[in-house]
Amino acid sequence: MPELDLTATSADLTRAVCDIPSVSGDEASLADAIEAAVARYPHLEVTRDGDTLVARTDTGKAQRVVIAGHIDTVPINGNVPTRNIEQDGEPYIWGRGTVDMKSGLAVQLKLAAELVDPRVDLTWMWYDHEEVDAASNGLNRLSQNRPDLFVGDFAILGEPSNGQVEGGCNGTLRAVVRTHGVRAHSARSWIGENAIHAAAPVLARLAEYRPRDVAVEGLVYREGLNAVRIGGGVAGNVVPDLCEVEVNYRFAPNHTVAQAADHVRNVFEGFEVEITDAAAGARPGLDAPLAQEFLAAVGAEPRPKYGWTDVARFSALGIPAVNYGPGDALLAHHDEERVPIAQIEAVEQGLRAWLSPR
Amino acid sequence: MPELDLTATSADLTRAVCDIPSVSGDEASLADAIEAAVARYPHLEVTRDGDTLVARTDTGKAQRVVIAGHIDTVPINGNVPTRNIEQDGEPYIWGRGTVDMKSGLAVQLKLAAELVDPRVDLTWMWYDHEEVDAASNGLNRLSQNRPDLFVGDFAILGEPSNGQVEGGCNGTLRAVVRTHGVRAHSARSWIGENAIHAAAPVLARLAEYRPRDVAVEGLVYREGLNAVRIGGGVAGNVVPDLCEVEVNYRFAPNHTVAQAADHVRNVFEGFEVEITDAAAGARPGLDAPLAQEFLAAVGAEPRPKYGWTDVARFSALGIPAVNYGPGDALLAHHDEERVPIAQIEAVEQGLRAWLSPR
Repeated sequence: MPELDLTATSADLTRAVCDIPSVSGDEASLADAIEAAVARYPHLEVTRDGDTLVARTDTGKAQRVVIAGHIDTVPINGNVPTRNIEQDGEPYIWGRGTVDMKSGLAVQLKLAAELVDPRVDLTWMWYDHEEVDAASNGLNRLSQNRPDLFVGDFAILGEPSNGQVEGGCNGTLRAVVRTHGVRAHSARSWIGENAIHAAAPVLARLAEYRPRDVAVEGLVYREGLNAVRIGGGVAGNVVPDLCEVEVNYRFAPNHTVAQAADHVRNVFEGFEVEITDAAAGARPGLDAPLAQEFLAAVGAEPRPKYGWTDVARFSALGIPAVNYGPGDALLAHHDEERVPIAQIEAVEQGLRAWLSPR
Repeated sequence: MPELDLTATSADLTRAVCDIPSVSGDEASLADAIEAAVARYPHLEVTRDGDTLVARTDTGKAQRVVIAGHIDTVPINGNVPTRNIEQDGEPYIWGRGTVDMKSGLAVQLKLAAELVDPRVDLTWMWYDHEEVDAASNGLNRLSQNRPDLFVGDFAILGEPSNGQVEGGCNGTLRAVVRTHGVRAHSARSWIGENAIHAAAPVLARLAEYRPRDVAVEGLVYREGLNAVRIGGGVAGNVVPDLCEVEVNYRFAPNHTVAQAADHVRNVFEGFEVEITDAAAGARPGLDAPLAQEFLAAVGAEPRPKYGWTDVARFSALGIPAVNYGPGDALLAHHDEERVPIAQIEAVEQGLRAWLSPR
């Protein structure tokens, strides 16, 4: 079994956790290595659920903070093992997972081992299956199997945020807009009705759509409405009777899923709209006292998070939550995924400064 | 081996050739049975090429007529063996192939056996692989292997034409119209460009398109331009960078493939257009003297054929050709495919009246 040395630098630890491949569904080796590594630290009470690990301090502090990160990655594409590279004179670690989100994971593992007596009690959560469907998500499973572990006054998710603090997240809703027609042989097309032609106004409304910017608790969330898939057609000589346009609406966290669904139905009024999938966003929650202390300690200006992340799960449980991790989210899933070592160190120092006893 | 009795009625022979399954690629049994049956008639000189059979009379007549039909069908869907049914008091034969085009084949087989001394020399062609891609077509293969057999003053194809004479056929052209964009995560869609949204004007032009009616040698051909397939999309959270709309243009036989391609490029001016497949139509050729005699003998008003058929192959060789067969083309490939027995008999009588010695 590969071993992890939690006393290594967070940069070296980043390479070590990246070099144990852990594409979604294949996290067992990395989970085993993490479990063995944290088991050596008696100040941590370790629980395992599938390939998710929870490590808790229990020092009797008045407050508890949850710090979480996923251990899986999207598929490797010739970019593991990792390499140390330089770009514009700056040292980077290159490879799958370096951004999303094993550098954040490495920082968390190192601090979990080091912070024997943190100034708040800590619940570390390292979970599987984040990069795939929500039903498989390890954090979701854990919240059902062990709701008792989801106790806390504040939560930090180590998703890449360029070392900044990103508050809340937009919600996401998917819908299928359908047009219908009547099949016919394309040699006698006037007998049929072309469902693809009937989708012209659907695409026109998408092309004309101007997304809103919505301020929520001082952060401005930018929305978006996009076709993510279109499909239709029976055969090369048949007028098709069905066309489907799948759209993805990203909506600001002051709107409920029901409001978002109404908005999408309004945009496509006159067409069949089926809502297929939705998750509410998360308000930034930065007015919580612990959040204010955290911002002051790490010295970062909060920004809005656009993408949906698991902070919304904590938000739904009434736990204010933010994203704070090294790496540029635009490089996540990229074949040239890479993280500046300085950002890994800055996040490590930010978290340590806030969590160390005063 | 199943046996065919060419002295049976054309209705019984229709059932017999339908009940020997011969989906494209699986025509050998039927071809064997046809070969064995026609070999008994010494007035026919029989040639086999793959599963295509050619049977020729050689009675020294001044003119020669080619009469052709394919022996394959689209896949069976619980509709073989055939049944005799009644509809509105009229007797039908029901089952796969009854319309397209084994009733026409049965008439041809019966007359090939019977017409020992026809008033023109006859070249019967029964060929494989018509219902699949053009490259596999038995008539196409035969024209390459045995061009010497493609000699004639007139050709009749037994494709279903409701017992009427359908002249020529529209051409067909397929093209892919592509729009491009820039991929991005749908949570930050403003970084990308949505290729599906960019296809809005492509669908709008299709929806607004008014097809032409074009008179060619007295017959009016109705054209059509249709999307037959649309596709685009990477994943449910990705702004797609490519959208493809496959269109099928059916064009009147007075236009060349090059003119048809220009027309499609004009309609989609400003977009990337790739012509993927095209076949010229066939002029009706009804001004040929033999065609006029044929029309008078069978007593039918000529109509335009909309769908592309193998008449275009003869037309391209300079042989005027028409479609003449029992069955409603709208029921071809239908699960309830069925042909009125009276139409089979009418086509048999029409061909016999014209081909019998005066």
